[in-house]
Amino acid sequence: MTITGRRGFLKGSLAAMGGGLAAAATGGTARAAGDIKVNEWMKTLGEGVVSRPYGLPSEYESHVRRRWVEWLTATRESSVSFTPIQDLDGIVTPNGLCFERHHGGIAEVDPSEYRLMINGLVEKPLIFTLDDLKRMPRVNRFYFLECAANSGMEWRGAQLNGCQYTHGMIHCLQYTGVALKTVLEQAGIRPNGKWILAEGGDASGLDRSIPIEKALDDCMLAFAMNGEALRPEQGYPVRLVVPGWEGNMWIKWIRRIEVGDEPWHTREETSKYTDLMEDGRSRRFTWIMDAKSVVTSPSPQAPLKYKGVNVLSGLAWSGRGKVKRVDVTFDGGRNWVEAELAPPVLSRCLTRFHVNFEWDGRPLLIQSRCIDETGYIQPTKDELRAVRGTNSIYHNNGIQTWHVMASGEVENVEIS
Amino acid sequence: MTITGRRGFLKGSLAAMGGGLAAAATGGTARAAGDIKVNEWMKTLGEGVVSRPYGLPSEYESHVRRRWVEWLTATRESSVSFTPIQDLDGIVTPNGLCFERHHGGIAEVDPSEYRLMINGLVEKPLIFTLDDLKRMPRVNRFYFLECAANSGMEWRGAQLNGCQYTHGMIHCLQYTGVALKTVLEQAGIRPNGKWILAEGGDASGLDRSIPIEKALDDCMLAFAMNGEALRPEQGYPVRLVVPGWEGNMWIKWIRRIEVGDEPWHTREETSKYTDLMEDGRSRRFTWIMDAKSVVTSPSPQAPLKYKGVNVLSGLAWSGRGKVKRVDVTFDGGRNWVEAELAPPVLSRCLTRFHVNFEWDGRPLLIQSRCIDETGYIQPTKDELRAVRGTNSIYHNNGIQTWHVMASGEVENVEIS
Repeated sequence: MTITGRRGFLKGSLAAMGGGLAAAATGGTARAAGDIKVNEWMKTLGEGVVSRPYGLPSEYESHVRRRWVEWLTATRESSVSFTPIQDLDGIVTPNGLCFERHHGGIAEVDPSEYRLMINGLVEKPLIFTLDDLKRMPRVNRFYFLECAANSGMEWRGAQLNGCQYTHGMIHCLQYTGVALKTVLEQAGIRPNGKWILAEGGDASGLDRSIPIEKALDDCMLAFAMNGEALRPEQGYPVRLVVPGWEGNMWIKWIRRIEVGDEPWHTREETSKYTDLMEDGRSRRFTWIMDAKSVVTSPSPQAPLKYKGVNVLSGLAWSGRGKVKRVDVTFDGGRNWVEAELAPPVLSRCLTRFHVNFEWDGRPLLIQSRCIDETGYIQPTKDELRAVRGTNSIYHNNGIQTWHVMASGEVENVEIS
Repeated sequence: MTITGRRGFLKGSLAAMGGGLAAAATGGTARAAGDIKVNEWMKTLGEGVVSRPYGLPSEYESHVRRRWVEWLTATRESSVSFTPIQDLDGIVTPNGLCFERHHGGIAEVDPSEYRLMINGLVEKPLIFTLDDLKRMPRVNRFYFLECAANSGMEWRGAQLNGCQYTHGMIHCLQYTGVALKTVLEQAGIRPNGKWILAEGGDASGLDRSIPIEKALDDCMLAFAMNGEALRPEQGYPVRLVVPGWEGNMWIKWIRRIEVGDEPWHTREETSKYTDLMEDGRSRRFTWIMDAKSVVTSPSPQAPLKYKGVNVLSGLAWSGRGKVKRVDVTFDGGRNWVEAELAPPVLSRCLTRFHVNFEWDGRPLLIQSRCIDETGYIQPTKDELRAVRGTNSIYHNNGIQTWHVMASGEVENVEIS
C-alpha cells in the first residue's frame, strides 16, 4: 500500500495500522470525583438580557469561523467562504457559518426595492415583490447545498489539509419559500417552454439554464433559512433552491426567470461549471451532486487528543435522495463497519453519522463510504480519475482518506 | 359572542366576521410585467469574503430581534429574552434569536475550566471535563424548549399585544450531546437512587429534581445547538436537555448531578414553578408541556397588509410526542379547517403549519387548536380556568385568539 500525503510519500504497513483500532467503545472517560472548584462565574452576576438582542457565540469559540483560501480566486469579491465542518455536529449549519460563493461581492439588496420578473415563453409576464411571494402557498424543506467545486482541489492528489477546505463548500438549512412551480403556473408556461434561465441580481448577474421538469418538480424561491430571513451573502431577500443540484444553480438575489425553448449556454455553464476530460472535451450539464461523505472528526483540524474511547463523526449526502448506509474503515479499507445514522434522515439533506471506537495510539487510515437509496456507492478517487481524468475541477465525490498519526495529528493523504 | 381585548370590550357579530374569509387561495399576487430597475447593487461590486468570518443578518432585518419586558422581572440579570416568532417560519430557531431565561445573568464559562460532577447514590462518583463528554457516544435530536411561564400573563385575560410576548418563551433546535443515561451508568446508580438533582454553574445555582425514569429515558447533556457550540446564554458549554418538559428543568451551565432517593424540593420547584390553585393549594411537579399552538402570522406584530391571497403560518407542539393535527378557525370557532403540517413532524419538536386563505377585508377572529398523537386536544383558556383558576402563572396552553380588524391590524383578544 502506498500512502500519498501533502509532504510526499509515506510508507505504511497496514498490519501495523490495523492494530490501532480496538472494539467498540466501552470504557469510561471520566476521573474519580474529588472537589470541584467554585469558579468566578458562580460568584458574580453575569450580563443581563438587554445587551444581547441578537446573540453571538462565546468568545472561546472564535476559532469556529468561515475561512477562505487567498490563492484560490483572483479577488476577494469573487471568492469562497468555507464552512468549519470539523467543528460542527448535527445536520443544521448555523446561519453565520454557512458556506457561500460570490462572484461580484455580496449584494446589499433593499427588500422594498426587490422585484422578480417572469418573462419569455409565458402567457402573462409578471413582476413579484417580496410581499407578493410571502403571500403565496409556503413550503419548508431541509436541503444541503454543495458547490460543484467542493473537493475539486483534490483531483490531482491530496492538496489541502483539513475538511474545512476539502469538503467545506457545503451547508444544510431549513429553507422557507414558495414552490417555483406556483410562480411559473401563475405566469402560464407556453407549450414550447422547455427551459428556464435564472438570473441573479448582483454585480455578476450570474445566470444558469434549468430544464423545465426540474423547475416544476422541487425548486423553490426561498426567502428564509433556518427560520429567519436569508443572510445577505446567501442571496437576501430571495434565492433559488435547486435540491440535490450543484450550488451555483441556486441563483442568489434572483431577479428574473425567463422561460425558453432551449438552454442558454451562459458563461457559467460553458467556460465554467463544465468538467474538462482528458481528451479535451467537456462534460455538459453535470447538475446532480452524487453521493458523498466525509469524516469531520477526527480530521486534520480536529485531531485525536486521547487514547481510549472516542467518537468518529461525519457527514453523508446524496443529490439523488436519502442516504441509505455509511461504512467507515479505520485501516484503509481492509475492514469496514456500518456507521450509526442520526435521525432524521431526509432526502437531499445532510445525514450525520457516528462510530464509537477505542484508539490504542497506533496510526489509522480513516475513510467513509456513502451508499444512497438508489444503490449508488461513493467511488474511490482513483475510480473517478479512471473515467474522468484529472482536469475536471468539479464533481469530485471520491472517498476521502485521513491519516491519523501516533501523535493524534491527522493529515490528508491518498492510498492506492 | 363577547370579545375581550386589551382596550376593553368589543362587540362583534360573527355573521359579519365570518364573511371575511373566502375560499382557499386561488388568485394571483403579482402585477403585469413592465421593466424592472437595474439597482445600484447590480452596478458595483459588493463586499468580499474576508469581512464576514461569522455572518450576521441584513441591516434591513434589525427589527427581527429578541425582546424583553422591563416590568416582568426585578432586574435585567434575572429576565427573559423572547423569540420573535412572528418574524420566523419553519421549525428551526436561529441561534441568535433563541428564547432564554437567566436568573443570575449570563455566566461566561471558560470551557477548559468546565467540570461536571456526578455524586450521591452512585457506585463511583465521577468528574467529567468537556472533552470527556465529547468522546462519549453522541446523540442528535430536534427538540422544542418552552418556559412553563410561556403565555402565563394571559391567565387573567388578554394582556400583551404580540405573539413574541404571549408565546415567545420558546425555541426549537437540533441538540448534540451525550445521553444522560450514558453518563449515569458510568457512575453506576445505586438501587435506592430514584431521583437526580441537576445543578447549574451560574451565580443563581438553579437546581431541579428529576425522577430517575426520565433521566434514563431521553435526557441529554448537550454541548451543541444547531451544529455549533451552545451560546453563552443557553448554558455554554453544557446544558441539560429534558425533552417535552418545562424549560427551567433544562439546567444551563450544568456543574453537578446528584443521585438521591427523593426529590429535593428546591426553591425553583416550591416557591416558584408550582401552579397556585384557587383554593390556595399548589400543583406540584407539573413537568410536561401539554399540546399547544399559536398562529404567528397574522398576529399583532405581523398584520395583514393585503386583501386577497394570504398565508397563515403557525407553530404547534406537544411535550407528549408528535403533533397529529392542527385546526384553524377564522370566525372565532364556528368553522374549522385542517392546517397543512410541513414535514418533518418530529416528536417533542415544533411543527410548522400553514393555511392558504383569501381575505376580503372584513374582520376575522383567528384561533388554532393542536391535537397530539395521544389524542389530547388543546383546551380553551376558559376550560383551563374552570379547572385551575387564574393564579397559576404556569402551564397556560389555552387556545389563543387574534382579532384581525378591517385595517389589517391584529390584536390579542379573548372570546367567550
